[in-house]
Amino acid sequence: MASIFSKIIAGEIPCYKIAENENCFAFLDINPLNEGHTLVVPKTEIDYLFDIDDPLYNELFLFSKKIATAIKNTFKCERIGMAVLGFDVNHAHIHLVPMNKVSDLDFSKEKLKLTQEQFQRIAEQIKINL
Amino acid sequence: MASIFSKIIAGEIPCYKIAENENCFAFLDINPLNEGHTLVVPKTEIDYLFDIDDPLYNELFLFSKKIATAIKNTFKCERIGMAVLGFDVNHAHIHLVPMNKVSDLDFSKEKLKLTQEQFQRIAEQIKINL
Repeated sequence: MASIFSKIIAGEIPCYKIAENENCFAFLDINPLNEGHTLVVPKTEIDYLFDIDDPLYNELFLFSKKIATAIKNTFKCERIGMAVLGFDVNHAHIHLVPMNKVSDLDFSKEKLKLTQEQFQRIAEQIKINL
Repeated sequence: MASIFSKIIAGEIPCYKIAENENCFAFLDINPLNEGHTLVVPKTEIDYLFDIDDPLYNELFLFSKKIATAIKNTFKCERIGMAVLGFDVNHAHIHLVPMNKVSDLDFSKEKLKLTQEQFQRIAEQIKINL
């Protein structure tokens, strides 16, 4: 069965899209640790990050770098943190999170509740900085 | 002033080294979240991950993939998690952490206390699997 991310990429489930290219896709995490929390995924459904072949793996991280720079230019934050865990959805995804302190990357903390309008505005702001 | 990681790379401060190549260096985190928690750093002292130029950035992540595979083959764990935060040492470093649950990548939790012998044994085991 297609992962929820594959359905998002296929447009079957809506998302707040940031960017895509031939092989990668970036969209807002709807359970964000901070405003601007973005997920970057390969379009190919591969569960484990380190099983991705080198060319796509490189492309995914270069794509993430570009997205991270746009997020950094959008939000007041010290840096963009990166994390790959892999316990919720079996489709490799890189978390990019605006950070001002270590706990901003604490996945056990309560997630932000944002409205549809807030998500849309955040996505638009990041896209302007791409 | 040289970062603590630059001093480790230069051999001025001891470490439990896992591997190195021309541009990258991997060694055990001495405040590990789990046994096998490893740091991968560029030999060049660059503070922020996303400021690293593309060729070195790619090399760093490919090197991390190789190290992660060796760690995964050493420890009973579901997967190797990856995180880049950047609030402790101003020298970009990728955390690779054996994980069985989300909280294994919680940087606020108490770190493991291991003996020198335990660190040495862990490093040797990972190196065998490289």
